[in-house]
Amino acid sequence: MTAPIRVATADDWAQIWPFFQSTVAAGGTYAYPDDLTSAEAAALWLETPPGITIVYDDGVVLGSAKMGPNRPARGSHIGTASFMVAPEARGRGVGRALAEWMIDWHRREGYRGIQFNAVVETNTHALQLWRDLGFRSVGVVPGAFRSATHGYVGLHVMFLDLTEAGDPAEGDHGGG
Amino acid sequence: MTAPIRVATADDWAQIWPFFQSTVAAGGTYAYPDDLTSAEAAALWLETPPGITIVYDDGVVLGSAKMGPNRPARGSHIGTASFMVAPEARGRGVGRALAEWMIDWHRREGYRGIQFNAVVETNTHALQLWRDLGFRSVGVVPGAFRSATHGYVGLHVMFLDLTEAGDPAEGDHGGG
Repeated sequence: MTAPIRVATADDWAQIWPFFQSTVAAGGTYAYPDDLTSAEAAALWLETPPGITIVYDDGVVLGSAKMGPNRPARGSHIGTASFMVAPEARGRGVGRALAEWMIDWHRREGYRGIQFNAVVETNTHALQLWRDLGFRSVGVVPGAFRSATHGYVGLHVMFLDLTEAGDPAEGDHGGG
Repeated sequence: MTAPIRVATADDWAQIWPFFQSTVAAGGTYAYPDDLTSAEAAALWLETPPGITIVYDDGVVLGSAKMGPNRPARGSHIGTASFMVAPEARGRGVGRALAEWMIDWHRREGYRGIQFNAVVETNTHALQLWRDLGFRSVGVVPGAFRSATHGYVGLHVMFLDLTEAGDPAEGDHGGG
């Protein structure tokens, strides 16, 4: 079955905002300002080209991801992405489906790799998912995140190589 | 001798812009867009609180640095900084003086550490300076920078711990 994932529109924001807000308020995963208005958060989350934002829409929007170049100009060949899943939908593969779509998007767009700048070390579910999908930890910045529940914890920088040399999936599916 | 460093004002931009522009155009150190107007570059370089921008002003402005929180909210206890030195003033300690001022500023402001997100691995002069000042490399994101002269090269994430436990300078000068 293909996951019900599509590009987000401005109309989706009303369904994203509640889980964006509760995710940031929980204080365990993101360093977004905690006093964002809905409009400010929408401006941060809904990407403009060359980035895009997607939703997992199973009748209701259960999750969303945004992606695009991690840096401009001389760094724009490396992408990055962020994810949010509605609390009631966790553990059902929504994050994994969004992440797989995100990796395919980067391949199609010709990115050479994907960098996550700040994966909280106590977010073990996310770390395991990224590792399952081929990301490796480049390093941990110690104490760089003030977790609501764990205090100062490290932030992993993670990387997935999408060049032919570094990408095992290229070999698996290599054309003939 | 105290280095002639002071907080920058908008009037300093006319002297910063030429070396900002030539540094970005050289393509060896920064992933800023290469088509920035002077006004766009000024908006990026001249920080607003809680960040600040400083200049090394020896009669003429020979260098500049900007600094502030690396992330908002739950990441705002870790600072970051960027540096530019006029080509004609390189090798005269301007960058080191700006960096020492920058580290002192972070201590005074109560930051727990300083993170550099993207130090180009072929910028060996900068890497050596940061190491001299106590930074360590957390890791290298391979091929994340497209250098004008070296092609795809890695970007170091570097970190200086300013907490009591991690900061050797605290021991050296410990009050009594």
